[in-house]
Amino acid sequence: MAYKEHYPSARLEEAVDAIGTLPGIGRRSALRLALHLLKQPSENVHHFTEAVNNLRDNVRYCRECRMIADEEVCSICSDRSRDHRTICVVSSVRDVMSIEATGQYRGVYHVLGGIISPLSGIGPSDLTIGRLIERVSALEDPQSAEVIMALSGDVEGETTAFYMYRQLAGTGIKITALARGLGFGDDLEYADSLTLGRSIAARVPFKG
Amino acid sequence: MAYKEHYPSARLEEAVDAIGTLPGIGRRSALRLALHLLKQPSENVHHFTEAVNNLRDNVRYCRECRMIADEEVCSICSDRSRDHRTICVVSSVRDVMSIEATGQYRGVYHVLGGIISPLSGIGPSDLTIGRLIERVSALEDPQSAEVIMALSGDVEGETTAFYMYRQLAGTGIKITALARGLGFGDDLEYADSLTLGRSIAARVPFKG
Repeated sequence: MAYKEHYPSARLEEAVDAIGTLPGIGRRSALRLALHLLKQPSENVHHFTEAVNNLRDNVRYCRECRMIADEEVCSICSDRSRDHRTICVVSSVRDVMSIEATGQYRGVYHVLGGIISPLSGIGPSDLTIGRLIERVSALEDPQSAEVIMALSGDVEGETTAFYMYRQLAGTGIKITALARGLGFGDDLEYADSLTLGRSIAARVPFKG
Repeated sequence: MAYKEHYPSARLEEAVDAIGTLPGIGRRSALRLALHLLKQPSENVHHFTEAVNNLRDNVRYCRECRMIADEEVCSICSDRSRDHRTICVVSSVRDVMSIEATGQYRGVYHVLGGIISPLSGIGPSDLTIGRLIERVSALEDPQSAEVIMALSGDVEGETTAFYMYRQLAGTGIKITALARGLGFGDDLEYADSLTLGRSIAARVPFKG
């Protein structure tokens, strides 16, 4: 913000400070949001703050897959119609929601809670990798089960996948990764050259 | 959002719903913010919600100018070194903060709390215009006092200013408006033609 801020009220400034701690919300947006909240009926504002407090205070993580859950076991892990011998490993809850939205997956998940990132000080022990190894080790006949690495395609994602691969290799479980290449409907002209290059190198039989 | 959302937790969905009611925050941003809040220490989240509740529950409006205030009279109206016979009429608290940030104004303010907008169902009685008339009427010797119309330059702002002008004309108070024209440092090439046209029509003596 280019100019010094002149708050008419300490309460307003405190609220702007608090709202401004949210990621992607600058001081100007925070002020706009604070003045918006001021104009709302009191019940609406209380409903908003209660929903946020309730989320934070009463959050639970699924005993099996470490996804956010309302019960001890999440709705996916407690769904007996799903394939509990196919475990899709993702970094975050958002990734689960994205994959569920495709409607293409009937297995279960394992949420790591992040990605190995030495620069951010996140090591394997900060993630739920130990719990994943336990889950896989507890499977009967792991050779016919599968772990899908569904992590981002950057260095950190690949490092994390490789770390887990080494931990899991001894169990004999089948380990796969998301297919990578041009998106369906992508135009070659606008594809990034790394993706395009890998798509050529990893070409697949044409299904006419 | 192009796809159906699959929330792993009703608490998460309720928090996303609540955060998504904020202006300019879509469902995806709301989910990102909710998951961010989940990762924060509990005290930080409580501090955030308390600051918002405190703002909404304990907000006060200055008895004189209707600006947000912590006391019965705001810090500007209670500042005896300011010129209480020059009243700058603005639409919102943000406008006060913008003008204060310039450091160029030593008078007081009057916050209308909006602008006359028939399309949004906001009429003169929804604003603090009545209170402004009272303030001006209570001034001694209004002919030597001044009201500055500092509203937006669109039709609604001009309508509101004209409405107040007619109400105030009988008091004999001097009524001025913000100077309008090209911004300092603005390039003619990029100026909108309405502003440029009016800047030519309202040209002023050159001060060499």
